[in-house]
Amino acid sequence: MSEASFDLALIGIGTGNPDHLTFQGAAAMRDADLIIIPRKGEDKADLADLRREICARVLEGAETRIAEFDLPKRDADGDYLAGVSDWHDAIAAVWTETVASADPAPKKVALLIWGDPSLYDSSLRIAARLDPRPSIRVIPGITALQALCAAHAIPFNDVGAPVLVTTGRRLRERGFPADADTVAVMLDGACAFQSLDPEGLMIWWGAYLGMDGEMLFSGPLAEVGPKIVAARAEAREQRGWIMDIYLIRRTVRAA
Amino acid sequence: MSEASFDLALIGIGTGNPDHLTFQGAAAMRDADLIIIPRKGEDKADLADLRREICARVLEGAETRIAEFDLPKRDADGDYLAGVSDWHDAIAAVWTETVASADPAPKKVALLIWGDPSLYDSSLRIAARLDPRPSIRVIPGITALQALCAAHAIPFNDVGAPVLVTTGRRLRERGFPADADTVAVMLDGACAFQSLDPEGLMIWWGAYLGMDGEMLFSGPLAEVGPKIVAARAEAREQRGWIMDIYLIRRTVRAA
Repeated sequence: MSEASFDLALIGIGTGNPDHLTFQGAAAMRDADLIIIPRKGEDKADLADLRREICARVLEGAETRIAEFDLPKRDADGDYLAGVSDWHDAIAAVWTETVASADPAPKKVALLIWGDPSLYDSSLRIAARLDPRPSIRVIPGITALQALCAAHAIPFNDVGAPVLVTTGRRLRERGFPADADTVAVMLDGACAFQSLDPEGLMIWWGAYLGMDGEMLFSGPLAEVGPKIVAARAEAREQRGWIMDIYLIRRTVRAA
Repeated sequence: MSEASFDLALIGIGTGNPDHLTFQGAAAMRDADLIIIPRKGEDKADLADLRREICARVLEGAETRIAEFDLPKRDADGDYLAGVSDWHDAIAAVWTETVASADPAPKKVALLIWGDPSLYDSSLRIAARLDPRPSIRVIPGITALQALCAAHAIPFNDVGAPVLVTTGRRLRERGFPADADTVAVMLDGACAFQSLDPEGLMIWWGAYLGMDGEMLFSGPLAEVGPKIVAARAEAREQRGWIMDIYLIRRTVRAA
């Protein structure tokens, strides 16, 4: 019972537009004693600034403190899953230190998560490694999937039809899914759609969704795919980073 | 050019917790000249009240008007997709009448959509049938998928792994997907998970997510499935309606 112990809130804050924050998310931020924020590492400079902007807006008049921490780097060599596991251990240790350094000791700690804490985010898995394990509360946030569909004003799914949500790596390895005529692709650093036969496929692509400089492309994959590859490379070069996501729909059924 | 014309905002308002509303959604509501709201029909009484509660909270001091309309009933006989198409035409006609009846004529019209306008929702397809076609803006909202994962404090996906988002009907017809070890099931009126061999499957189920009376069950499908079937039937009987959603994950790989 001598161990420090706290409640942990994982708060989804949407995809880059500060107005994606929900009233529930704002209330949870103000209710926290301490919000811990990664200073650098994986996070892009624009995004770190956006987190600070959200805090400045929401925390006015609240007693919530903020502590920044340096996000450990992931070892990109060796086995992918083992590398991720070690990295999660390192992040859990840094979270623990950061909270332990706060004086007075916080009872309620919060993390601000881009998008939603459940979707291709590691925070829940990292939190499960904390010892003692905190009580965890998740506040849902707007995901990039919804921001993409909203920006294009398109439905995620066809009427009554399924969608496979997957990663660029998987799309490249497995090809277009058998179970669905729509595939939503996240975490794709290398335009995996280039590995598909574009015949009969439409793409809706977006980058920097909800942020200044939002980019959108849509149309037949055969025609639009090469434009995306070029525009993406140029934007990444200019801005220093890119986060993108896309939806591909089979509009012509294979015979 | 004699036709009335307006801009249409489809605003995602989350899954039943008024605090799921985003700052962007609230601003879009206040910016509208007219919000049109279904009075009855598909909508459950609790949900109609919740919509009014959200309006009362958000619109204080705004000049936004509200107009209610009766949602046409869908013809459940005959071909499913043809029935849906006729129903969408009927709804588009009622939207047009409701907006045309407003005096002075609104320039900015908004609809409040449960969850997110892109996910298993018809509003975008109905809006596409309006003549003249309005300029359409989509404001993303918290989906039931995220509310489910948040309530259980679980990730949507395994590390780097895909998820198939589908319907109860499809799950029953096609069985557990080949492309993913996780399936998220929506629009299931009849516990389609009963059609699966439960061996090696875990389920996370939720109903009335974000609302009073939220129900949650999780565990091995073999053990928890029958409990869900019973509890669901009882809750539906008591409350008069139910909306539920679930995630099933294969934890043991088929040989």
